[in-house]
Amino acid sequence: SSAPSPIKATLFPGDGIGPEIAVSVKQVFQAAEVPIEWEEHYVGDQIDPRTQSFLTWESLESVRRNRVGLKGPMATPVGKGHRSLNLTLRKELNLYANVRPCYSLPGYKTRYDNVNLVTIRENTEGEYSGLEHQVVRGVVESLKIITRQASLRVAEYAFHYAKTHGRERVSAIHKANIMQKTDGLFLKCCREVAEKYPEITYEEVVIDNCCMMLVKNPALFDVLVMPNLYGDIISDLCAGLVGGLGLTASCNIGEAGIALAEAVHGSAPDIAGKNLANPTALLLSAVTMLRHLELYDKAELIQDAILNTIAEGKYRTADLGGSSSTTDFTKAICGHL
Amino acid sequence: SSAPSPIKATLFPGDGIGPEIAVSVKQVFQAAEVPIEWEEHYVGDQIDPRTQSFLTWESLESVRRNRVGLKGPMATPVGKGHRSLNLTLRKELNLYANVRPCYSLPGYKTRYDNVNLVTIRENTEGEYSGLEHQVVRGVVESLKIITRQASLRVAEYAFHYAKTHGRERVSAIHKANIMQKTDGLFLKCCREVAEKYPEITYEEVVIDNCCMMLVKNPALFDVLVMPNLYGDIISDLCAGLVGGLGLTASCNIGEAGIALAEAVHGSAPDIAGKNLANPTALLLSAVTMLRHLELYDKAELIQDAILNTIAEGKYRTADLGGSSSTTDFTKAICGHL
Ligand SMILES: CC(C)[C@H](C(=O)O)[C@@H](O)C(=O)O
Ligand SMILES: CC(C)[C@H](C(=O)O)[C@@H](O)C(=O)O
Repeated sequence: SSAPSPIKATLFPGDGIGPEIAVSVKQVFQAAEVPIEWEEHYVGDQIDPRTQSFLTWESLESVRRNRVGLKGPMATPVGKGHRSLNLTLRKELNLYANVRPCYSLPGYKTRYDNVNLVTIRENTEGEYSGLEHQVVRGVVESLKIITRQASLRVAEYAFHYAKTHGRERVSAIHKANIMQKTDGLFLKCCREVAEKYPEITYEEVVIDNCCMMLVKNPALFDVLVMPNLYGDIISDLCAGLVGGLGLTASCNIGEAGIALAEAVHGSAPDIAGKNLANPTALLLSAVTMLRHLELYDKAELIQDAILNTIAEGKYRTADLGGSSSTTDFTKAICGHL
Repeated sequence: SSAPSPIKATLFPGDGIGPEIAVSVKQVFQAAEVPIEWEEHYVGDQIDPRTQSFLTWESLESVRRNRVGLKGPMATPVGKGHRSLNLTLRKELNLYANVRPCYSLPGYKTRYDNVNLVTIRENTEGEYSGLEHQVVRGVVESLKIITRQASLRVAEYAFHYAKTHGRERVSAIHKANIMQKTDGLFLKCCREVAEKYPEITYEEVVIDNCCMMLVKNPALFDVLVMPNLYGDIISDLCAGLVGGLGLTASCNIGEAGIALAEAVHGSAPDIAGKNLANPTALLLSAVTMLRHLELYDKAELIQDAILNTIAEGKYRTADLGGSSSTTDFTKAICGHL
């Protein structure tokens, strides 16, 4: 009997520690016998005129074709006129929702031990419109754009996510008491979608109050959905509650079923190539990609192996207070499979 | 010998629990022999055409004349066309900086025990411009306005505050990697002012990273200065680290030396009139008013009495897990004077 043909997925190892932690993912996937074949793409060393960035057209075509991908940290080259690689990917692939599950890792102590929430960020508009100008000398404006289409789309994603992931509540985060038109439209769209999901509790929380509640009692929250900038802020705050960006997964959802999972931490050039990097964020992001592919068994298997390795505490990288190398930590995970 | 004539200060007891906690301040000030004479003003029950709000013209004139004031919580009447009372005060009195000292209260345990920072928020522009419109059906815009004048003014206040309060570092919080023009101008102004204060360390921190650092290790921060909305978010986040808005002081600084201190918590109508409210936030805000008046001895005396009463733990209101009434807690503070 012939094995089913593997699923193709695009892999951007990225810069700095990216290639090392990408190797870790490849090894763990191999050990877990995940039926995935990686198409590796690197950021180019000159601007591709078709993407207006260092991202090659071929790499974007690869994601569009495969519909799934995994991305390590990318350092946008310094200098004028370079579009951020992250923003280019969001725009070119229309990655409209950024999903970040955030939970306390068993055995890894922070000040919080009962975090279990998911932030869902609108990823294409709002304060990220890029529309800014000087009105007169000394007076500048930025435009925040909220559309009904993008708000409904991300709200729909959030409620569908809640329903299919056994979550009970969706909180829409806003500042509609000040931005009545923009955040008001966002809320209106969330309310419309909420009506279609009577089994999910819906609430609205003002962003300042939300941040205070998150640091006082994060267990109050389940799924949070919000405009772009609030999502940027709150997803990092939440990552901080459980240990930081090195430990949290992120996945970008695009139209036509595209999912591009990514480690949102930096490329850490200071430790690059030294076998010191913690691959957890990229590994957990890869797990969200497996769930998107409905490979639930493999996803559980790998997630458990990662969490058990961290919980045991014998093999931890330096950022978690241990002294393991990237490769030893990876081997330990494979040993748990 | 005749006693020096008292300093006049405006007092807005406000709504809900406001009047009760204002009584607490008056009693503590009397017991501490603070040479202040209060001019009390209440929010009106109809719109004053000269302020376009429920605030009376006389009350604003009182603050303008006295240059100092203290304000309890004000509930903006629900309904269309009512300007928020808080926003009206900021606008009418040109309250350009909101200052919130935030520190761990000895003896009152939260997850954090080493917080000691001050947030300084630009309070007049940014995302609070009120300029919004619908472009076409389903597409709305809000304008964020940043001006050189307001940015320099708040930066100047922040560095001056740091210098005169024995603080060592000012962190400017921004998202200039996305809003290059608006937040870029804000940073440019901060840098200009920083050059005049070589003894103060200056740094720039992106808001998402700032929120993550705040929940991981707030001791990294000293004075934070930022545009309006970031200040709204971060000041509440910081209050959450040490127990919430019921325990933190706030003071608004205006042109011409005006200072309007305020409790930023809500009016808590559910417990109003029941002698249950915690007056700490209003008391500590009143202390910032005393410092503004350079009545440093009285400020220290009263602050110590408040903190010692809370630290002892014998008299605490219900929100702090105790069962004291507002009046018993107030008496205990007076007993410490
Ligand atoms: C690097 C930056 C442009 C980006 C953002 O602001 O979205 C980052 O903070 C993120 O959350 O992915
Ligand atoms: C009530 C609201 C308008 C206000 C604000 O957003 O500024 C409040 O959150 C504050 O911080 O004083």
